[in-house]
Amino acid sequence: METFLLVLELIGTVSFAASGALKGIKKGMDLLGVCVLGVVTACGGGVLRDCIIGAVPPVMFREPVYALTAIGVSLVVFFPAVHRLMERHTHGYEAFMLIFDSVGLGVFATAGVSAAMAAGYGNNFFFVLFLGTITGVGGGVLRDVLSNSLPYIFTKHFYACAAMIGAALCALLWPYLGQRASMIAGAAVVFLLRLLAAKYRWKLPRAKK
Amino acid sequence: METFLLVLELIGTVSFAASGALKGIKKGMDLLGVCVLGVVTACGGGVLRDCIIGAVPPVMFREPVYALTAIGVSLVVFFPAVHRLMERHTHGYEAFMLIFDSVGLGVFATAGVSAAMAAGYGNNFFFVLFLGTITGVGGGVLRDVLSNSLPYIFTKHFYACAAMIGAALCALLWPYLGQRASMIAGAAVVFLLRLLAAKYRWKLPRAKK
Amino acid sequence: METFLLVLELIGTVSFAASGALKGIKKGMDLLGVCVLGVVTACGGGVLRDCIIGAVPPVMFREPVYALTAIGVSLVVFFPAVHRLMERHTHGYEAFMLIFDSVGLGVFATAGVSAAMAAGYGNNFFFVLFLGTITGVGGGVLRDVLSNSLPYIFTKHFYACAAMIGAALCALLWPYLGQRASMIAGAAVVFLLRLLAAKYRWKLPRAKK
Repeated sequence: METFLLVLELIGTVSFAASGALKGIKKGMDLLGVCVLGVVTACGGGVLRDCIIGAVPPVMFREPVYALTAIGVSLVVFFPAVHRLMERHTHGYEAFMLIFDSVGLGVFATAGVSAAMAAGYGNNFFFVLFLGTITGVGGGVLRDVLSNSLPYIFTKHFYACAAMIGAALCALLWPYLGQRASMIAGAAVVFLLRLLAAKYRWKLPRAKK
Repeated sequence: METFLLVLELIGTVSFAASGALKGIKKGMDLLGVCVLGVVTACGGGVLRDCIIGAVPPVMFREPVYALTAIGVSLVVFFPAVHRLMERHTHGYEAFMLIFDSVGLGVFATAGVSAAMAAGYGNNFFFVLFLGTITGVGGGVLRDVLSNSLPYIFTKHFYACAAMIGAALCALLWPYLGQRASMIAGAAVVFLLRLLAAKYRWKLPRAKK
Repeated sequence: METFLLVLELIGTVSFAASGALKGIKKGMDLLGVCVLGVVTACGGGVLRDCIIGAVPPVMFREPVYALTAIGVSLVVFFPAVHRLMERHTHGYEAFMLIFDSVGLGVFATAGVSAAMAAGYGNNFFFVLFLGTITGVGGGVLRDVLSNSLPYIFTKHFYACAAMIGAALCALLWPYLGQRASMIAGAAVVFLLRLLAAKYRWKLPRAKK
């Protein structure tokens, strides 16, 4: 079970680190800025979650593998050959961000639910849902705040909704299906919802001013 | 006494959530962004305070009533009929922000003092003052950072000063008048100072460059 | 030894508070905004560090001397005569920021290592390095986020690299030289690296888009 969780979280880490590093490149940051943005995007949601539940030091410091993976990914993405290739083969920056961000979002939202369950908050559905969502979207919000942008999640593509729906599904299935199947189901739903939302241009309504 | 505190905090929650939701609407966010900004503005100061004193999970997660109230207010404000009406009857966005923000500011600044006293920091005046102020202004700062704006409190209207003066008054009166009267006095002073500051255009000096 | 650490940290506090206050002045903030930015820059890195290791309330609230020093410095810098003089005699804002920021950076990066050692994390080099770096750069990042700027450390002058190298050196020398000599060596290296980087225009590579 531990191995399963580790593999899933490493996939999410790679995805989010790549999206953070690309954002740093787009903003003209130097090598260090690109690496920091990769690490913040990949590990930031978990750090927020761990500070909120008082699980200190946060897991990213107890298990350096996540931060080191994020640094490695950022270094690879930094090569012009790599990030140009990624962009060309996925029809540009937006499409690439979509795919990687969606995988990471699903993995981390359900990993947040898992951490909430492990910390004994299974009887507080509202809190479990919040921890799942913030683990999923927190890194991206920090990425956007640190690169002086309006956070992506507030304006685009049904983003945080997908994380909330997946986290809720994962939490609801948990007592019946156990950790592994609930997490896979939740993460898959997040990924599918995001792709469907992008393809059919689902949007949440905006207020008319 | 508990009921008294609850009523006061719900008034503050409604006020701050409305100011956050309006900001989200002004920035062109979608429904979810508007709700998140409402919740962050209403509950963010308390979360910062609770993380700083190590009272985890923060009260917003132990008592979902505040976040649910903030979501409800955000949904109501989201209707064009509602936010247009609010703006028309209060001479525009700025005036509306002023009134609601001032009520919330007074309530939360004194609620922060109350939380500091309950946590046993009554003998550290500096810390009590800080916790009151950050509970009052923290949500608004997070609102502005998340909507990619220069924080309102740094540039306008005597804002954080009013919170500090009210929190200090509340802390000083506490041993003599008890919780209820000190909080009412502190919150009322914050509200009055803010309105006076707006009416007579009190300003803190700015540095000449 | 306590006195030694206090003196070093007060030097760092003065340096960082001055850089934060100058930034606030540059952004057109009022007196309170300038003071808040001074305090955040001087104390923010330590607050982040203390929240991450669960040492609450953070040291800035247990020892008001740092925040009070930062407020005092901000008030002095606020006088037009003072901040104009500072800028004239150091060839402008950028040069002044460089010197003060570099002193503060060295002091706080090594103070972060010292706090990590005191909290018993000496056997986790990765975490010690992170705590040193975030204590050094965290206040500046908060300063830039709160003044709605792209964080300085992501784009300029080898900044966070110098902090990491100094923190690493301090941590590596610690078992051999003890606290005082390791901290002086680490802080001096940070300061020198920053000045050399500025003089010879060392830059980290940026990605070609």
